[in-house]
Amino acid sequence: MSPRPMTRPGGRSARVQESVHAAVRALEAEQGREALTVPLVAARAGVTPSTIYRRWGDLQELLSDVAVERLRPETEPADHGALRTDLEAWAEHFLEEMSSPPGRAYIRDALAGDPDGSHAGQCSAYAAEQVGIILARAADRGEPAPDAEVVMDHIVAPMMYRLVFRPGPLDATYARGLVEATLSSLMPPG
Amino acid sequence: MSPRPMTRPGGRSARVQESVHAAVRALEAEQGREALTVPLVAARAGVTPSTIYRRWGDLQELLSDVAVERLRPETEPADHGALRTDLEAWAEHFLEEMSSPPGRAYIRDALAGDPDGSHAGQCSAYAAEQVGIILARAADRGEPAPDAEVVMDHIVAPMMYRLVFRPGPLDATYARGLVEATLSSLMPPG
Repeated sequence: MSPRPMTRPGGRSARVQESVHAAVRALEAEQGREALTVPLVAARAGVTPSTIYRRWGDLQELLSDVAVERLRPETEPADHGALRTDLEAWAEHFLEEMSSPPGRAYIRDALAGDPDGSHAGQCSAYAAEQVGIILARAADRGEPAPDAEVVMDHIVAPMMYRLVFRPGPLDATYARGLVEATLSSLMPPG
Repeated sequence: MSPRPMTRPGGRSARVQESVHAAVRALEAEQGREALTVPLVAARAGVTPSTIYRRWGDLQELLSDVAVERLRPETEPADHGALRTDLEAWAEHFLEEMSSPPGRAYIRDALAGDPDGSHAGQCSAYAAEQVGIILARAADRGEPAPDAEVVMDHIVAPMMYRLVFRPGPLDATYARGLVEATLSSLMPPG
């Protein structure tokens, strides 16, 4: 008896999501973004167009959902043994991914088809989760560490604000400078 | 001889922009957002639909352009005689406007129809201009002041990141806390 195919938790609903997302990614890679339509995605995914309309509303919301999934971090932040190096490496990596052409496109898509803000909220939740892991490690080591909200406000927010609102190049030096400012100035005394 | 009607610089192009923007605002107020179409806006503005398509691309880009115009500050920041109070008052006012239901809708519209990022860039340019006025006043008074980029990264960016990416309430206390952190910790020594 061959092993059953892996399904993610959630049963049919999760399988529909997975096949529709896969269809979007495949069609986009093969035919380009402009060619995507709900009927085309539905045919490729083996569902009816009304299944897509019912669940996602329209193509833009579906593309936003796919983009958010692509922005999901695949691994935990690397553990370099110290808060500063962990934060620097994570901030550099985050900025590099988000400022790449695909990263910028995913952010744009995520925001464009997001009438209730839940997709944008998911993006920030991913970042907050990674930051939380880094800060928990620091706590385990007994290192003093800033509050998670301080990291979100003064390291994550400036990078994302520049990515979305301010044209111009962004590099690792900028990311490290935010970590430096936060750790040297915005830490609680102690 | 009666005075000629005021026209903004730019001649016909600026007059077209003004009448199209006015048509969007009027139709939205009268019939609601969902009723807007390019032909309807064109008819109200007294231009052809192709004028709108040629200049704005589609309805979403037109709505983004109108939203950016609505986000333009109408006045200079109030002068309270000291950097801290100027920054606090401005940050509170900025957050109050941006987090209001219309403010959030304008930000959403501005980002949604902005394929090249220029509308988002205009939003941040408005904020940078206001910040620049406040910092120039501090310099005139001989007050020490942070760099404009520090204010953008650590006061404006956290507010905008939360507005766009993080659900939850935002209030004047939060805005004042960012000013406090920036002025007490992120100022250059001196």
